[in-house]
Amino acid sequence: MFLRKIASQGSPTRSLSFIGNLQLYRKLSRNSVGSWSPSEASTFSPKKALVLTKLSRYEFEKLRHKNLDENQLEDALRKRGSDYNMLLYHHTLHKNCEAMVKSILEEKNIETKVVTRFDYNESNINWADVIFTAGGDGTFLLGASKIHDPTKTIIGFNSDPTRSEGYLCLPKKYSNNIKNAIDKLLQGKFRWLFRKRIRVTLIGDKIYDVPVELHDQQLNQLENRFLEISEDRDEVPKSEESIKNKRILPVKALNEVFIGEALSARVSYYELAVDGSERTKVKSSGLCVSTGTGSTSWTFNINKLPHQSVSDLMQLIQEETRLPIDYKDQRLIDRITAKFNNNLIFGPEIALMGYTIRDSLLDGTLPVPGERKPRGFAKQLNIRSRCFDASLVIDGGLSYSFNDGTVAILDIVDEDALRTVVLNEP
Amino acid sequence: MFLRKIASQGSPTRSLSFIGNLQLYRKLSRNSVGSWSPSEASTFSPKKALVLTKLSRYEFEKLRHKNLDENQLEDALRKRGSDYNMLLYHHTLHKNCEAMVKSILEEKNIETKVVTRFDYNESNINWADVIFTAGGDGTFLLGASKIHDPTKTIIGFNSDPTRSEGYLCLPKKYSNNIKNAIDKLLQGKFRWLFRKRIRVTLIGDKIYDVPVELHDQQLNQLENRFLEISEDRDEVPKSEESIKNKRILPVKALNEVFIGEALSARVSYYELAVDGSERTKVKSSGLCVSTGTGSTSWTFNINKLPHQSVSDLMQLIQEETRLPIDYKDQRLIDRITAKFNNNLIFGPEIALMGYTIRDSLLDGTLPVPGERKPRGFAKQLNIRSRCFDASLVIDGGLSYSFNDGTVAILDIVDEDALRTVVLNEP
Repeated sequence: MFLRKIASQGSPTRSLSFIGNLQLYRKLSRNSVGSWSPSEASTFSPKKALVLTKLSRYEFEKLRHKNLDENQLEDALRKRGSDYNMLLYHHTLHKNCEAMVKSILEEKNIETKVVTRFDYNESNINWADVIFTAGGDGTFLLGASKIHDPTKTIIGFNSDPTRSEGYLCLPKKYSNNIKNAIDKLLQGKFRWLFRKRIRVTLIGDKIYDVPVELHDQQLNQLENRFLEISEDRDEVPKSEESIKNKRILPVKALNEVFIGEALSARVSYYELAVDGSERTKVKSSGLCVSTGTGSTSWTFNINKLPHQSVSDLMQLIQEETRLPIDYKDQRLIDRITAKFNNNLIFGPEIALMGYTIRDSLLDGTLPVPGERKPRGFAKQLNIRSRCFDASLVIDGGLSYSFNDGTVAILDIVDEDALRTVVLNEP
Repeated sequence: MFLRKIASQGSPTRSLSFIGNLQLYRKLSRNSVGSWSPSEASTFSPKKALVLTKLSRYEFEKLRHKNLDENQLEDALRKRGSDYNMLLYHHTLHKNCEAMVKSILEEKNIETKVVTRFDYNESNINWADVIFTAGGDGTFLLGASKIHDPTKTIIGFNSDPTRSEGYLCLPKKYSNNIKNAIDKLLQGKFRWLFRKRIRVTLIGDKIYDVPVELHDQQLNQLENRFLEISEDRDEVPKSEESIKNKRILPVKALNEVFIGEALSARVSYYELAVDGSERTKVKSSGLCVSTGTGSTSWTFNINKLPHQSVSDLMQLIQEETRLPIDYKDQRLIDRITAKFNNNLIFGPEIALMGYTIRDSLLDGTLPVPGERKPRGFAKQLNIRSRCFDASLVIDGGLSYSFNDGTVAILDIVDEDALRTVVLNEP
């Protein structure tokens, strides 16, 4: 509920940091906001636009069942408990949005090309002055993952706002008023928003293994599951042996980097150093490192407190302190829960990462640093894998293998930022 | 720290439930404790004992590098950053424990056979009157997983108490005093402890697929990784088509059942019904359902609050209520944190499951029941998978596939309980 309020359109003022880090955050915030193009004019006059559109569930099912006619498809879906009519309805909503974006851009004399993920490649991206996405956050993340140039703008329309929040897209009201959004852009009624991203440097032996795509779960049942290879794979440099062991990953994380055993039910072992500290051994269900953008996403869901826990805790505090804390006051519980959870979120332009040691293991025999501080902020993280079959996953999408001995250095570098926009509101 | 105190040797009185469920818990506790063999005498006079011993890391490395001599192995390990001497030291500790258990049992004229996981099969289990495990909790879990008969006793010795806590084993002090433990058993100075387990019934199409072993991470690099098949696989009954679609899994969960996408970085979709309620849709990083035994384990690590969060929350409550809550009082924070976390734990003989919706997604567009109650107790859970590549994992060890449309019913049935012991303390 409160999330709806806070998380719309990543304004840098929505921020707040974990309590106690507030001072630090504000200081860094002043330094980093606008460090890219401090006073770049808000002008937007593209000649060529690329629209990346998502594959709807309906299209996916059609692809999957090429041999079925429309009636047979309807039957097959019904048997699986899926509603054919709803699929078709949401497909139509999505296609309308896509068509509207295209027609309005063309009205403004902007040459426009619509592509799906299968044709979203370097040559199309280089051709375009601006990338629009029509879909949800997944489509925006896919769009962003192939943009390496901070002068290239990406703007998302949420094609089905009844179904997903679309934190990365323009606010929902523009889904039904695409013309208004594009007018504002062309009239310069916006400001640039540079969303910080995480750069990953791998050091080790097998760091040029081909990554696996996890993105878009709908695709995973296609036969090419686990075989759909990122086109962005860079070549092993042949010139120098030493370079072979160090590699900056071609994809930067907009939301988060997740590090841990690939299989959910395994414990992950690794060594973690924060901002140049000594490495300490950690056992947990993985490590989640987010940007400000990603602080509303997975990392938020790990750390947020439910009302249930806040209420239980208020009762315990009342019992311990004997102070008149009304732990049954639902509105008080709501306010405190919302405040605590809001404090987990920080601005997308902050040059910091929020890290979370998930489900850290309290092995009574070891002093576990995670026990006292399972989350915090960092400018740099250094992680050494002690895992057997682990992965380093960028934005829940691209999975690199990260096994015993491999080191990952996580940084935020200004030039990796993603250029997007915030429209002016009256 | 506090965990060391509370979690030793699952006494049923250590209990407490989530606040508010306390009454329910106490009621159920009275009903269920002792429902098996309410006043069975504490007599222990086995003729034949099977000792299940773990494969030490040293033995594992020897197996893995059969072609290397001792010096070469030392080199190879050093290069990987592992300490050969430490491996050998811990191997020796473990072997001493194993030898001691065997020799003391034989001193008492109990016929004793030592087996590793590779020979821990039905015929050896049937041969024995009692199973001892020498290792840690992993070895105990493996031992328990193949015991289906509530008259068969299993008792664990923690072979290396400096390295692991061994919640399922006898208290650590007996690791260095095995004779004392066995004397107490033979003298009847113990009580039976029936640890409840979770029974899983699968309903669907592909429920007879072969499970995958995830247990013992050390083994996963052997070539038979993902091929080591459980011997317990039962046959598809051929008599009746209807039975084909319903199956009680042969292995019961002593700690927990984890349900979700097999890959850590994917979101899991499922429908959950608690104690006969209507099913509601959930998106999360999986569902963890634990027994009382497992309430000190994974499920505890998911739900426990760090001091950091308790302190932050106390500050927020102070700010909201203006009451003089001293949120910097470290001892107060410690007490409240310990109390909150202790309340997550419940007794191993309670016939209830504690469920946790992990990292539940707050998708602002849907009313998410998980938001208000991401954890609770249940006598029965009914879960329908809407996942693409999911698994249902028993005790972090055996993984069954659990894909779209498959239903799992989780129950606690008295006759599935595992018989173990609590030694009397003066």
